[in-house]
Amino acid sequence: MIKVGIVGGTGYTGVELLRLLAQHPQVEIVSITSRGDAGTPVANMFPTLRGRVSLNFEDPATAQLDACQAVFFATPNGIAMHQAPALLDSGVRVIDLAADYRISDVHEWQQWYGMTHASPEWVAQAVYGLPEINRAAIREARLVANPGCYPTAVQLGFLPLVEAGLVELDHLIADVKSGVSGAGRKAEMATLFSEAADNFKAYAVPGHRHLPEIRQGLSRVAARPVGLTFVPHLTPMIRGIHATLYARIGPQRSFDVQALYERRFRDEAFVDVLPSGSHPDTRSVRAANLCRIAVHRPQGGDMLVILSVIDNLVKGAAGQAVQNMNIMFGLPESTGLTQLAVLP
Amino acid sequence: MIKVGIVGGTGYTGVELLRLLAQHPQVEIVSITSRGDAGTPVANMFPTLRGRVSLNFEDPATAQLDACQAVFFATPNGIAMHQAPALLDSGVRVIDLAADYRISDVHEWQQWYGMTHASPEWVAQAVYGLPEINRAAIREARLVANPGCYPTAVQLGFLPLVEAGLVELDHLIADVKSGVSGAGRKAEMATLFSEAADNFKAYAVPGHRHLPEIRQGLSRVAARPVGLTFVPHLTPMIRGIHATLYARIGPQRSFDVQALYERRFRDEAFVDVLPSGSHPDTRSVRAANLCRIAVHRPQGGDMLVILSVIDNLVKGAAGQAVQNMNIMFGLPESTGLTQLAVLP
Amino acid sequence: MIKVGIVGGTGYTGVELLRLLAQHPQVEIVSITSRGDAGTPVANMFPTLRGRVSLNFEDPATAQLDACQAVFFATPNGIAMHQAPALLDSGVRVIDLAADYRISDVHEWQQWYGMTHASPEWVAQAVYGLPEINRAAIREARLVANPGCYPTAVQLGFLPLVEAGLVELDHLIADVKSGVSGAGRKAEMATLFSEAADNFKAYAVPGHRHLPEIRQGLSRVAARPVGLTFVPHLTPMIRGIHATLYARIGPQRSFDVQALYERRFRDEAFVDVLPSGSHPDTRSVRAANLCRIAVHRPQGGDMLVILSVIDNLVKGAAGQAVQNMNIMFGLPESTGLTQLAVLP
Amino acid sequence: MIKVGIVGGTGYTGVELLRLLAQHPQVEIVSITSRGDAGTPVANMFPTLRGRVSLNFEDPATAQLDACQAVFFATPNGIAMHQAPALLDSGVRVIDLAADYRISDVHEWQQWYGMTHASPEWVAQAVYGLPEINRAAIREARLVANPGCYPTAVQLGFLPLVEAGLVELDHLIADVKSGVSGAGRKAEMATLFSEAADNFKAYAVPGHRHLPEIRQGLSRVAARPVGLTFVPHLTPMIRGIHATLYARIGPQRSFDVQALYERRFRDEAFVDVLPSGSHPDTRSVRAANLCRIAVHRPQGGDMLVILSVIDNLVKGAAGQAVQNMNIMFGLPESTGLTQLAVLP
Repeated sequence: MIKVGIVGGTGYTGVELLRLLAQHPQVEIVSITSRGDAGTPVANMFPTLRGRVSLNFEDPATAQLDACQAVFFATPNGIAMHQAPALLDSGVRVIDLAADYRISDVHEWQQWYGMTHASPEWVAQAVYGLPEINRAAIREARLVANPGCYPTAVQLGFLPLVEAGLVELDHLIADVKSGVSGAGRKAEMATLFSEAADNFKAYAVPGHRHLPEIRQGLSRVAARPVGLTFVPHLTPMIRGIHATLYARIGPQRSFDVQALYERRFRDEAFVDVLPSGSHPDTRSVRAANLCRIAVHRPQGGDMLVILSVIDNLVKGAAGQAVQNMNIMFGLPESTGLTQLAVLP
Repeated sequence: MIKVGIVGGTGYTGVELLRLLAQHPQVEIVSITSRGDAGTPVANMFPTLRGRVSLNFEDPATAQLDACQAVFFATPNGIAMHQAPALLDSGVRVIDLAADYRISDVHEWQQWYGMTHASPEWVAQAVYGLPEINRAAIREARLVANPGCYPTAVQLGFLPLVEAGLVELDHLIADVKSGVSGAGRKAEMATLFSEAADNFKAYAVPGHRHLPEIRQGLSRVAARPVGLTFVPHLTPMIRGIHATLYARIGPQRSFDVQALYERRFRDEAFVDVLPSGSHPDTRSVRAANLCRIAVHRPQGGDMLVILSVIDNLVKGAAGQAVQNMNIMFGLPESTGLTQLAVLP
Repeated sequence: MIKVGIVGGTGYTGVELLRLLAQHPQVEIVSITSRGDAGTPVANMFPTLRGRVSLNFEDPATAQLDACQAVFFATPNGIAMHQAPALLDSGVRVIDLAADYRISDVHEWQQWYGMTHASPEWVAQAVYGLPEINRAAIREARLVANPGCYPTAVQLGFLPLVEAGLVELDHLIADVKSGVSGAGRKAEMATLFSEAADNFKAYAVPGHRHLPEIRQGLSRVAARPVGLTFVPHLTPMIRGIHATLYARIGPQRSFDVQALYERRFRDEAFVDVLPSGSHPDTRSVRAANLCRIAVHRPQGGDMLVILSVIDNLVKGAAGQAVQNMNIMFGLPESTGLTQLAVLP
Repeated sequence: MIKVGIVGGTGYTGVELLRLLAQHPQVEIVSITSRGDAGTPVANMFPTLRGRVSLNFEDPATAQLDACQAVFFATPNGIAMHQAPALLDSGVRVIDLAADYRISDVHEWQQWYGMTHASPEWVAQAVYGLPEINRAAIREARLVANPGCYPTAVQLGFLPLVEAGLVELDHLIADVKSGVSGAGRKAEMATLFSEAADNFKAYAVPGHRHLPEIRQGLSRVAARPVGLTFVPHLTPMIRGIHATLYARIGPQRSFDVQALYERRFRDEAFVDVLPSGSHPDTRSVRAANLCRIAVHRPQGGDMLVILSVIDNLVKGAAGQAVQNMNIMFGLPESTGLTQLAVLP
């Protein structure tokens, strides 16, 4: 049994981590912290866990997280960069679900996140936790930067095309739609039911923090800078991300996109390439650690349209974090992650 | 008072027409037909109209529609092309909310709609009822082809750019999201609440019937063929269309897009260009005859992002039809169309 | 034109008041206040009002509300009791949409609302603004206490039975379901989309503040104390209240409930008794100032089931407030309140 | 491994059975039938099952269901009564998720269901599959009539009170709210997204088929006829039932309701009595085989209010069916039923 701790378990990624870890056959949750809710039984805040998780939230100051083998940070951005180094130094392996270690260029990170990085020395050592690209490095990683939800859906969707060098890389477009839980469990006006229900809107068109993360990931794969227009939208559903990706075919125009995708992801347990002509819906991955992808070339033209769906809280956050943990600790990658999606 | 009739008033565009016309100060609804529901009081099917609309649905065979000055067809595709000509011949002016007369190329229409056109001679005479482009022609029209919902949002969004010749016209992209009412009031599995709620999906990526309509409209404006990738999505909301439009700037790269849009729509009562940096949400036009538009140029790059929202049942269907009627009959264009959007 | 002011226009009842008043043919809105948003154009906060309401929010300290003929308080509980008296003294007529003047027993009010009443002398002068009961008094009122949303639906539903003395009054039951907008436009966790969507729950079963208000109203009608169990529920919709009311028939068991209700409300413009056997849905009154009621006596037993629906923001708040204003100023009661419900 | 078959797997209870059985460690699904979809891979209809369920739907005429040890009927009412007897005769144990064998009084059943019963001789042998009441009989049963969704929530909620004889039994009230999936996966107008979303309504107030089922169950427990008013409502959510139950306390007025409920369900794995003062929400059991209950006595009066929530597709249908199967085959009752509820 792997002894794990969770820092900051009161948000949606926190409770999703708890759901997955509480059902994981090789994990013992030994500690979960929350500054504001120390002392409260976890199951009081999240009645879904009644009878299954008997821990109380602990004060971060007194929790013995260094007795864990793995610690997940399910905190807002800017917390892990302060607290992770001490744990890492004491030998704990850390998976950060926030953005602190995702961007290699510390200067760029500081611009997008509006704070000074507290542990830039760890940025270089952090491994970007997208297993479909970085599996080997994750296995050895002491610190994993778990990808953002949008970046997971977009990178997996573009990956085979960019690897194969088959599309123009200067004008990729990612039009992405997210369920409201992506905004987190925070009391904010914009995500009230009466504001977000029966409504749809784009946001952050001038620039969203996930843009540099996606650009970095695709540029690494391409081994050259990639140009990307990224437009996120708020959708009146709880969970789910649907990425609609547009890429123009390069000079070599006759290739089998469907076969390319099927080949690329053949051995991936958590990426499912749908049959030609499909349209994945977000509920097909609801509550499951899966990315489903369909590829289209409308009217045989030179524009490819890739559809990529994930559950933002699972493959886009907590599920991918557990997948990373499985890899880091040498477990079969699917351990504890075989739940079927919930439909309807 | 204009005497109006409605053919096929049992769908969502039908009941929306009734809502608008029943409150229109210059209209008398004299007849509404439905083959299946003849004899049923309209207010029995739509309790919202109790006490306000006292008509019964009439059998189309016996309804005296030729006593009307204007007849709206709120029927499925393929009905108006059979029934409108007789009315037109007897001097009635017709507004077809279906697609029968939208595509000038009858051959292309037949391919996309899978039927033989029954009155191709009227296609040439029909005026495409997008007032912001065709106001003068609508004024004189005997037959108006009311635009589709997607085509309204997309064409209005691209219009100033295409008119000004400022963007590459071969690779326009329209990523559009529609509320479920756009699928009509038909008992179908895919639009059941339990299928469409808390879910999001693209559909018809290989080709949607609104593609040729949009392409035709933009090509006319551009006076050359336009290339368009059009991806519609089903969104878990009742009303609303959100078009996210992508266009690459052409050689002349320094111009003020915001000013261009404001100038183009300055005199339009039903197009509202939002201040720079805005993100319109669909509810801002819910139940109102309005298109709201915002323009973006992320990070000052060469890709423009235009956001365009309408209520698919109002500016995307019934409201635009009433707007066309107002123009045809010389009324102030806003008559009966001043309802404020309903928020929240 | 009646010069009106609004205190606290940033909540949902505030924006709904603005929607109704901006379309009211006999009203000029001269001032709207908000402490936190003074200086902000109203249409910036609520884009639905762009081009139609050109006011800025004003600081309550400097707004000249005493130049108004009528002032609406769309504030949280406990504001009007401080600010209304000065306006009243200067001759302004006041309609309070909050609860400050609804409960005649100041002691009981203080217990339920947890504060000391600042102007108990005005409580006795306030008229409870349910026109269907109090029309004559409202006409002369200087201060109208606009009823709560639940109390409106429940009192109108029970009214004919209680007036007629036909049911046992000690064990009335009101099982009531409200849309989330009833909780107001406040950044709170419990009404986030991700908490309230696809979910249903009762709340405040031990005691809700609307209980004494309903009990007071029904007891006045009955001229004796009434026993009521009141259970409110949070429903994943934006607008709408559905009250399911249970009353046991008294000794006189043969009477025509349907006829009783139709007779009672025959002359009421805003109460619609549906045909026998009906089930009103909340959308049948969405955005309209209406209460629709259906009466049932399942299997001919001794339990009556009354179904009563309103839009909580219209007949349950802003619409009823405008109705009261119309009465107070001698206008036809329906002036500015004839909008048809929005379906779908 | 228990070899199981499913008759009629294309509805929501069918796909939920598949989700649970595909993850059940002691089950092998050997056949699933559908007349209309024979030959179609199950995973084509339900992409959530891709890679996990490799069966095709089989024609009921040729499927070898008699090779199964257990067969679930997830069919519309009136199918199992024809097809189950032959399977039963060949030694297969049958769990019917429809209503065919729920009502012991065949005459009453025929009245409510509007058809002649095809196998009344099996009605007497069928065991009503509510484990919390009938566990011993279920263990030996050849034919289990799996309870309806409403009846499960209502009976479990009233059970301790009725067993203890502490409330008046002539006027029980069950005001129950259901998610739309309770209406099944059928193309019907009333359950379209655009009809059911952002809307709420009661239905079948004059009489619903679950009324006699609940009455029968509670009357058996009480050993006397029970009077019940049952009002179901359609709620804009996918899954979930919330029963709000009202019972008047009898002469013996001082007892501890909370303790009564906790004692009664102490050993039940799938009934969770919440702490005093709680309000369970339906999502706390979403996708989990659980009934959560809270008990209230508002203001210390003589009316008890019981809140009981289930997921209509799990504890209200497929989960309870698997629970019954576990009991019938001597497995630990929780086998394959330990999934945590999905929140948010």
